[in-house]
Amino acid sequence: MNKKEGKSALNESKNKPEARNISNASAQRIRSFRKKKFSADELVEQLLQGNKTALGRAITLIESNQKKHQQQANIILEKALPFSQKSIRIGITGVPGVGKSTFIESFGSFLISKGKKVAVLAVDPSSSVSHGSILGDKTRMENLVKEPDAFIRPSPSGDSLGGVARKTRESIVLCEAAGFDVILIETVGVGQSETTVHSMTDFFLLLKLSGAGDELQGIKRGIVEMADAIVINKADGENLKAARDAKLEFSRALQLYPAKESGWKPSVKLCSALLNEGIEDIWKMISDFRKEVEENKFFFKNRQEQNKFWMYQTINDYLKNRFYENETVKKALKEQLKLIEENKTTAFAAAKYLLSLT
Amino acid sequence: MNKKEGKSALNESKNKPEARNISNASAQRIRSFRKKKFSADELVEQLLQGNKTALGRAITLIESNQKKHQQQANIILEKALPFSQKSIRIGITGVPGVGKSTFIESFGSFLISKGKKVAVLAVDPSSSVSHGSILGDKTRMENLVKEPDAFIRPSPSGDSLGGVARKTRESIVLCEAAGFDVILIETVGVGQSETTVHSMTDFFLLLKLSGAGDELQGIKRGIVEMADAIVINKADGENLKAARDAKLEFSRALQLYPAKESGWKPSVKLCSALLNEGIEDIWKMISDFRKEVEENKFFFKNRQEQNKFWMYQTINDYLKNRFYENETVKKALKEQLKLIEENKTTAFAAAKYLLSLT
Repeated sequence: MNKKEGKSALNESKNKPEARNISNASAQRIRSFRKKKFSADELVEQLLQGNKTALGRAITLIESNQKKHQQQANIILEKALPFSQKSIRIGITGVPGVGKSTFIESFGSFLISKGKKVAVLAVDPSSSVSHGSILGDKTRMENLVKEPDAFIRPSPSGDSLGGVARKTRESIVLCEAAGFDVILIETVGVGQSETTVHSMTDFFLLLKLSGAGDELQGIKRGIVEMADAIVINKADGENLKAARDAKLEFSRALQLYPAKESGWKPSVKLCSALLNEGIEDIWKMISDFRKEVEENKFFFKNRQEQNKFWMYQTINDYLKNRFYENETVKKALKEQLKLIEENKTTAFAAAKYLLSLT
Repeated sequence: MNKKEGKSALNESKNKPEARNISNASAQRIRSFRKKKFSADELVEQLLQGNKTALGRAITLIESNQKKHQQQANIILEKALPFSQKSIRIGITGVPGVGKSTFIESFGSFLISKGKKVAVLAVDPSSSVSHGSILGDKTRMENLVKEPDAFIRPSPSGDSLGGVARKTRESIVLCEAAGFDVILIETVGVGQSETTVHSMTDFFLLLKLSGAGDELQGIKRGIVEMADAIVINKADGENLKAARDAKLEFSRALQLYPAKESGWKPSVKLCSALLNEGIEDIWKMISDFRKEVEENKFFFKNRQEQNKFWMYQTINDYLKNRFYENETVKKALKEQLKLIEENKTTAFAAAKYLLSLT
């Protein structure tokens, strides 16, 4: 690992777009803040005051793979934890082209006009290869990015979805401690990323398009079942009729799904993110949801369950990695898979043999 | 473990109902076969000739927790494996009261009339407590049980679904080696049992009732997505109209599901198992399915993937059990879960701490 200060990700000015917009701070103060080296305690203090540069820096510590940074990150997290209970975490998914960025731009700007502080994070396991296929280009949210009460952070890179997931979950805690009360977590349908985002959010919103065979195409198995709402975007102009038809069709289909543990009945909404239509209605729905699940105690119960789930998930991932990355196992695994393909051994006998190697 | 012969499950006459029906064998020969102690090789030889008593005995070896029996079981399995490629494995699920037993009785009898040999197995993880809530009472299939070409076996007991799953998967292999070419695997909606059965079968059939709000009640999340067919049972008499309405509703809903990897488009069928109506049509559908997925190569690819899945599943279960059953971990886990509940630690920090203990 390169320990030279000049090469550390922490010294890159990653947070320029946000920092530019801390309207009350002079450029001079920001510059001196950036140059200064902070202890974890100082960073937490700034972060709790809502300083976005401190927030960005703390997230960079979380994302770092350097041991020293991880230790600092843990100190910060522990202090930030008690302040992370008042937000709502909203997952937003949809196939590419459905208008996620435009929706977040429109929805986020609306929330800020209502006095909310909005953080936008992303979970994109492909970003370690493509360097961020979503949210990488902040210019797609050109109004939101200028808002002092908005914080936008691209997907962390990570060698695995597990790594990306952990970094995002811990970033949520920091955003909340910094006073952001609506956390939007964007994801794109890659691998298990939607399931991952679903298990770290309170409300899960599926964006869709009407017509053009979209009902049938591109929806991954299980996504509709996870959704707390289906929002049909681009419901404007010539699309309007098709969007209304799709709404009817989906509303009918949702009735066939089993009841949710939250007691919440998912509904279908129309919107045009481009024309800012239907946005207020969606926020009203989410507010209704929150009221309902706070009353029936599901809200906090679910967060507790999510935390426990992630603890088990982290442990189980580690146990598997340790086993499958063992060199003896790696070699023997190939042989056993071949025997299974040739129908020369049973799954159980192969497993037993491999387990005997460690 | 009790090693006295008199107490071994292998010496119980578990297979009486089937054995009674081996029409060509004299009672004398069966009795002497039962009394004799067989080597694994002899058992395999008998089993490959289609001897149901030998099959029952071999399955009992698989189900045994005694080490000696497990060794014999492994020898038998290895020899049986090459003969297990020609069957079709059909999973059948549905809530209690939907008529699974009546359906299997009717469907199985029809298949036998078409010259098939039919094995009926069950996966019921609750059976270790309740001693078999499904298939426990064979009299519910009173015609099928008398057929020489039918083999019926209740759910194995097991301390976990994983244990039940392994025993059932290996029993499938033995049934196939004994010449059974249609394997019906019944399950009831307990925990993850449907997912388990789905991942060991070629075709997954969801039995349902029409009307009475059944569309909304009792379907577990994900089940409809796994189904290759929804069969609405008890579509007779006064139920017929409601059944037809339900068929329409489900057909429409299925269109909203994403395409299956197999390329197969699931459909909805009506049947009255009681009146033997619609049964032939269901078999035709499954035959069409088989033709289609053999042509597009999905059939064998899927079985290979299932075998690999089960190997990984077995390994991962073992790794987890070993970790969580460690006494130090057990104690510390309780503390960490409490800290998570009190929001005093993160999921990741708790996981890291627990992993440091082993």
